[in-house]
Amino acid sequence: MQVDIGNALAAVADPGVAEAGLEELDDRVGAAHERIVAGRDQGSFGYAALNLPTETDPAAVREAVEPVADAEAVLTVGIGGSALGAATLSAGLGPAPVDHRVLDNVDPVHVRATLADLPLADTAVHVVSRSGTTAETLANFLVVRAAMNDAGVDWTERTVVTTGTAGPLRSLAETHGLPVLSTPEAVPGRFSVLSSVGLVPAAIHGHDIEALLAGAAEAAAGLSGSLLDCPAYAYGGVAYALDQRGAGINVMLPYTERLEPFAEWFAQLWAESLGKNGGGQTPVRALGATDQHSQLQLYRAGPRDKLVTLLRPRERPDRPIPDADIEPLAYLGGTTLGDLLDAEFEATEASLAAAGRPNVRIEIDRLDARGLGDLLFNMEAACILAGELYGVETFTQPAVEWGKRAARGLLGGGEFPEADAVADKHRLLVD
Amino acid sequence: MQVDIGNALAAVADPGVAEAGLEELDDRVGAAHERIVAGRDQGSFGYAALNLPTETDPAAVREAVEPVADAEAVLTVGIGGSALGAATLSAGLGPAPVDHRVLDNVDPVHVRATLADLPLADTAVHVVSRSGTTAETLANFLVVRAAMNDAGVDWTERTVVTTGTAGPLRSLAETHGLPVLSTPEAVPGRFSVLSSVGLVPAAIHGHDIEALLAGAAEAAAGLSGSLLDCPAYAYGGVAYALDQRGAGINVMLPYTERLEPFAEWFAQLWAESLGKNGGGQTPVRALGATDQHSQLQLYRAGPRDKLVTLLRPRERPDRPIPDADIEPLAYLGGTTLGDLLDAEFEATEASLAAAGRPNVRIEIDRLDARGLGDLLFNMEAACILAGELYGVETFTQPAVEWGKRAARGLLGGGEFPEADAVADKHRLLVD
Repeated sequence: MQVDIGNALAAVADPGVAEAGLEELDDRVGAAHERIVAGRDQGSFGYAALNLPTETDPAAVREAVEPVADAEAVLTVGIGGSALGAATLSAGLGPAPVDHRVLDNVDPVHVRATLADLPLADTAVHVVSRSGTTAETLANFLVVRAAMNDAGVDWTERTVVTTGTAGPLRSLAETHGLPVLSTPEAVPGRFSVLSSVGLVPAAIHGHDIEALLAGAAEAAAGLSGSLLDCPAYAYGGVAYALDQRGAGINVMLPYTERLEPFAEWFAQLWAESLGKNGGGQTPVRALGATDQHSQLQLYRAGPRDKLVTLLRPRERPDRPIPDADIEPLAYLGGTTLGDLLDAEFEATEASLAAAGRPNVRIEIDRLDARGLGDLLFNMEAACILAGELYGVETFTQPAVEWGKRAARGLLGGGEFPEADAVADKHRLLVD
Repeated sequence: MQVDIGNALAAVADPGVAEAGLEELDDRVGAAHERIVAGRDQGSFGYAALNLPTETDPAAVREAVEPVADAEAVLTVGIGGSALGAATLSAGLGPAPVDHRVLDNVDPVHVRATLADLPLADTAVHVVSRSGTTAETLANFLVVRAAMNDAGVDWTERTVVTTGTAGPLRSLAETHGLPVLSTPEAVPGRFSVLSSVGLVPAAIHGHDIEALLAGAAEAAAGLSGSLLDCPAYAYGGVAYALDQRGAGINVMLPYTERLEPFAEWFAQLWAESLGKNGGGQTPVRALGATDQHSQLQLYRAGPRDKLVTLLRPRERPDRPIPDADIEPLAYLGGTTLGDLLDAEFEATEASLAAAGRPNVRIEIDRLDARGLGDLLFNMEAACILAGELYGVETFTQPAVEWGKRAARGLLGGGEFPEADAVADKHRLLVD
């Protein structure tokens, strides 16, 4: 991964980081790197994620999916960090002969449509929940299991489980003799893409999960104590510094449809890790070139509260644009869709810079297993570095507990004062 | 559409709107409404969008698509406002026997995959560009046309065009005798969903476009001069007032997968209309309940810079959750996925309020053609009202021109100084 922070400097952008600010920041990056190294060495909670590229055993994943290796479709049942990594890998690694669907919501209409669409007898189901008690995931799994029963399919032959070392999903897997993998120790869901949590569907798809881990391992070996020679820290450090200077929004703008789910994965990583103590950048998921025709007006002429992160693979398969019999479009003849997309990428980057809007360019060589492993690892490291600079507990998400208790109380799952607060809603209805 | 602004008041939230502030705001809403009424009466640029529910002729749309009424798939070729409305209608109106794809990007990998996936001989192509010169749209159309030729399909029998009254796409349609519809007069693309721009695929799908327009017309009849009895203005007014008080981000959080494209449509409407003169809320596209496990930590515990808009249909088809043999989940037995989703909706809303985070609830009766027409019209009116309060030119998007000229220059489409600026990029590479 290569990062170009030129357009984030005060010489170009406002807000921007002055040269002096960059040096000062780099001292802090060096100190943060020491803490990160210590955390990795000790396998401390969260930091342990950075060890996954070498600690994950792809052979164990391949063995667990062996009974469903003939599947025509894979259905991931999980939510948040138990779903976004797998979706990111499937899209990023490109079309596979095997269809991949994700049930990461409890919308009855969507669940019904998904099940109606899948060849249940030839579908592999991957259920993912560390605790084994995630309400949405377990509810969906109960529905999927019943649908398989109704279709005369033995769900125990189609299901692979990834869960913690104890809990109801572990018990269920043991009762029914299901292949079961463990969520990685000391790694929060949003940092678990490079474990069985993310790799199971990719393995069923026949993707090169070894190359993915190798790309990540190479990135891991490249972490160093200065943002000036460590792309992950350059990105995390500059994003943090820009936030301190008013860029409270971080737009993730990949110029390839296959990285659209990556932008969602990044949004969870960034929001849940850094959104604490009244601070943290708000990630915005976008897509180039499409959003030039939707969001660019705001990015260029709206508030100076944004870092725009432009992301692309340097090489990609291409497609020529046929010669046009449409006169004003004659200039497109002889070019390719890729030329057009690259021109738009560079034009958008320059147009933001010309308006003094900070932006960062991230490039990977190409969007293959190695390149994607490189990207995912580096963004995790960027996030962990940023968490050190913010001084937050990067690896927890305490603010979501209130709502979980309220929902559980509303459904009759126990007495929770939070559920009573729901009934006390302050209303001012307009209709 | 019903709007509940109770959780946006200062009694609950910070930032929040005090009762006194609401009265003061309502005076400005009354004055803005006068201007909006005058703009509609005169059919002025932009305001004319509010007349589409009664001015669009669904019979003309049905007639234009008659030659492709047998299609098994519809492919919209357009970008921004020429694509998002159609995608919103297809998803919002639910699964149709006819597949709907959108080419709104020039990613060669995605274009190739889309074409490989479609039954070209049985696909209806809807090309949409007001100017008839949009580079991405025309490039994609040239590629689609060539792919049809290669497959031995007569593209002139499969293509419907929507464009302005003059321009290269109009000429092309006339040369080849294609069915051609006109983009509505004086209506920018992002406000054109209730015209042929949005309705063509829905008509081919067999959706009830008359009911959609009727729902919108009913909403149009309900516009009034006070935000206290006009849901559209309540939403637009409160969003504006919260932005003035520090909520520079507007999270659109529908609790149904079928409204996910609606959130994208809303994001264009809001960003391109209001993102001007250094102001305007940044829209964030989200999805409930999924993003509770990804973004809620940030929304509750991050910066106090967000309005969260929770949106749901009041009724929807449901699916029971089967009884569980998983002890800690026993409380889910006898409930439904819809119960769970509603509990999460209310719990999330209350959890934001408990943390003093402003939020607004929007409900429609149900997600059918009438309900969707109601919602779309009201959000357009909300946006126009907000534009009046901000005092911006709601209907233009001048900031995107710089990048268009730069891209054109880069591709050899003429001499543009903006293209030279691209070469002068300030670089600071880290790899």
